[in-house]
Amino acid sequence: MSQAPEYGQAFALWRNASNNSWRAYTRHEFVNSLCDGTLPKAAFIQYLVQDYIFLVHFSRAWALAIVKSTNLEEMKICAATVNALIHHEMQLHVETCANAGISEDTLLNAQEAPENLAYTRYVLEAGYSGDFLDLLSALAPCVLGYGEIGALSKTRQTSDKYDSWIATYSDPEYQQTCVDVGHLIDKALIIRLGEDYTQSPRWSDLCKTFETATQLEAGFWDMGLRTE
Amino acid sequence: MSQAPEYGQAFALWRNASNNSWRAYTRHEFVNSLCDGTLPKAAFIQYLVQDYIFLVHFSRAWALAIVKSTNLEEMKICAATVNALIHHEMQLHVETCANAGISEDTLLNAQEAPENLAYTRYVLEAGYSGDFLDLLSALAPCVLGYGEIGALSKTRQTSDKYDSWIATYSDPEYQQTCVDVGHLIDKALIIRLGEDYTQSPRWSDLCKTFETATQLEAGFWDMGLRTE
Amino acid sequence: MSQAPEYGQAFALWRNASNNSWRAYTRHEFVNSLCDGTLPKAAFIQYLVQDYIFLVHFSRAWALAIVKSTNLEEMKICAATVNALIHHEMQLHVETCANAGISEDTLLNAQEAPENLAYTRYVLEAGYSGDFLDLLSALAPCVLGYGEIGALSKTRQTSDKYDSWIATYSDPEYQQTCVDVGHLIDKALIIRLGEDYTQSPRWSDLCKTFETATQLEAGFWDMGLRTE
Amino acid sequence: MSQAPEYGQAFALWRNASNNSWRAYTRHEFVNSLCDGTLPKAAFIQYLVQDYIFLVHFSRAWALAIVKSTNLEEMKICAATVNALIHHEMQLHVETCANAGISEDTLLNAQEAPENLAYTRYVLEAGYSGDFLDLLSALAPCVLGYGEIGALSKTRQTSDKYDSWIATYSDPEYQQTCVDVGHLIDKALIIRLGEDYTQSPRWSDLCKTFETATQLEAGFWDMGLRTE
Repeated sequence: MSQAPEYGQAFALWRNASNNSWRAYTRHEFVNSLCDGTLPKAAFIQYLVQDYIFLVHFSRAWALAIVKSTNLEEMKICAATVNALIHHEMQLHVETCANAGISEDTLLNAQEAPENLAYTRYVLEAGYSGDFLDLLSALAPCVLGYGEIGALSKTRQTSDKYDSWIATYSDPEYQQTCVDVGHLIDKALIIRLGEDYTQSPRWSDLCKTFETATQLEAGFWDMGLRTE
Repeated sequence: MSQAPEYGQAFALWRNASNNSWRAYTRHEFVNSLCDGTLPKAAFIQYLVQDYIFLVHFSRAWALAIVKSTNLEEMKICAATVNALIHHEMQLHVETCANAGISEDTLLNAQEAPENLAYTRYVLEAGYSGDFLDLLSALAPCVLGYGEIGALSKTRQTSDKYDSWIATYSDPEYQQTCVDVGHLIDKALIIRLGEDYTQSPRWSDLCKTFETATQLEAGFWDMGLRTE
Repeated sequence: MSQAPEYGQAFALWRNASNNSWRAYTRHEFVNSLCDGTLPKAAFIQYLVQDYIFLVHFSRAWALAIVKSTNLEEMKICAATVNALIHHEMQLHVETCANAGISEDTLLNAQEAPENLAYTRYVLEAGYSGDFLDLLSALAPCVLGYGEIGALSKTRQTSDKYDSWIATYSDPEYQQTCVDVGHLIDKALIIRLGEDYTQSPRWSDLCKTFETATQLEAGFWDMGLRTE
Repeated sequence: MSQAPEYGQAFALWRNASNNSWRAYTRHEFVNSLCDGTLPKAAFIQYLVQDYIFLVHFSRAWALAIVKSTNLEEMKICAATVNALIHHEMQLHVETCANAGISEDTLLNAQEAPENLAYTRYVLEAGYSGDFLDLLSALAPCVLGYGEIGALSKTRQTSDKYDSWIATYSDPEYQQTCVDVGHLIDKALIIRLGEDYTQSPRWSDLCKTFETATQLEAGFWDMGLRTE
């Protein structure tokens, strides 16, 4: 199997600390069936519709990260992410869905699945109740996991049926976003907890938040398959 | 069937507006099996363990209602509820679990089920992102639903196996809490949206929040049965 | 005297409802002395330094407005404002201060004046504790007040000493931002409180928040003069 | 001069780190004039009125500490503080003011002074944007400072004119609250940042928050004198 991409030190540690959950998420049957083209189109569209609702709340969570930033550099990176989500990634969903005959109105009025709701509210609440680090550890599995899934899928894909989805997340631009977010996390940890941040009592809580968010991501894929 | 208890005007309207969801929650198989004693003890204990974790976050959500209050009377009622939850209701769980051989430490370290997490984070996030009314409409189904379930179970129970649970929520003291909370909701609506609060555009959003929280309560019962 | 610019219905009503406070803010001695060039350069630079710190927190408050939005259109307008603040308006301060020999590091490490702190924390807390409308009514006096001050100063200025400051806020682009924000406010009110939003009990609270934020703006000018 | 009371390790460190600000607050002319009875009654009443409004928001801030708690013990201590504030301390103000002919309605409708607003919004915003520690470091100067002022005033007082005020804060029960809160802070720091918490990069930020809140307390006394 090809190597997972590198997005910084903390991400590597979090991924290892939640190894089984991470594999269950990034090597999920939904992902495999995107690679080999066996995922039914209806399931994919249903996933896109839920993901559109997801992105609304996920953008709100990244906006909360601007509010929770404690320096201008953090604010700028988070603001860039909000813009990429609202103006770029959501637009891709609108276009792909439009091609499949689903209007933006339908997207906006779709019923939010329980797994979807659970995930975004968990992230937002972690951010509201905690500090910038609590929020980042809840945000990381989605951003960086999609980067890893995209990069690995690119090397594993045996069908071009879902090529545009795979292309989006394996794209050098998206991969650079992952590197930037990984760097933001590393720096935020050092600024707040010091170079030896894994020695801080907070480290295990951050690992746990990362793993819970990872499990909620796997639940999101489960939902995608259930709707077939 | 005996009459559901009265906890104020808004609650009656919310309950009607989410009729199917409300019935699925308050007439759930888990509730029925508490009444006729067919619920396995292991399922009940598992439910209590999850409910203990639930109460930690639910107490936090009621504390958030103090923060979101805009007058002293609201603050006092919410503070009384926080105290009742932390010092009274959680203590009952500790005692019941202790009788079943489960320590408070076990309770505190139990793994939070996804349905549990989804529900409490939904309520907290609704409160953080919205105002006092958004939070109350998310808090209402649990407090008032347990009141209705308790009152109805009291008249329907054919077994005394779960008598102490039924007694807790059918108790006049708990019923009075429901009346007080119902009154708090009615007054909060009138203060903010006027006497004709159902004519406000916000009303349908509050109804939707109430229904979503109701569905998450039904999911909590589902979880209780799954653990058998 | 020339006419104040039009930024929507709610703004006009809020301005009238807090008439004395609004005049004390927009016709403040600090503003007058910008127009006739009598403001000492040292006072202006000191104001810019405080305003830079202000903009950090004000950007965070607009980011909170993204989080508190309840539809995508609101999110997009608020996100555009965050970007304009972080990437455009703050940059202007950095450049102007650099010209006066003040480094960005000095800006970032300046001691926050009490009036500055009072204002931004008031706005952020109003947003955290309330909903989108509470936040907008606290954000409005700064954005729209600077628009009005810029437009009026343009017609009243008798010195070109502070021409670049006046040009920034009288600029058609900034004026358009004010029109957009005013429209956002009007629409947000109608969506949440209906066409007759002034009949809602919440209206007087929103007026009060607007006036308090206006008074805190006047306090900010006072601070600017005190530092001479 | 008599010894300041001991309320734990972190408090002692914070107090030392903000030595000048701490002395300006706890040895303020307002405090001195309470001890020797030279404070005009009108100033005292005006202070009580503002302090009543302060306590509403300060109670909300302690309620936010319940929400931000990460274990049940923290929740219980914070909930006890909320109750003491809402049911005990505010009641004292109502009674003292009633004796001076000021109704509770007058208290509730009094105009909030800018120094009052600045302080409470600073504390609440620190709590919302940060974690439990950020909030505690902003809450500490009021709770523990009043304990120190009460204890020292008891030994220094040369007039019984403001005896009941001094008695309230020198009272063994209030002193015990200070010891409990000091212990809560020490434990919360150790749980989150480790035994060597002063070595954490976060320590200097917490010291700064403590000092800023201390300066805002001094501003509150200034306001008390200004109203003479």
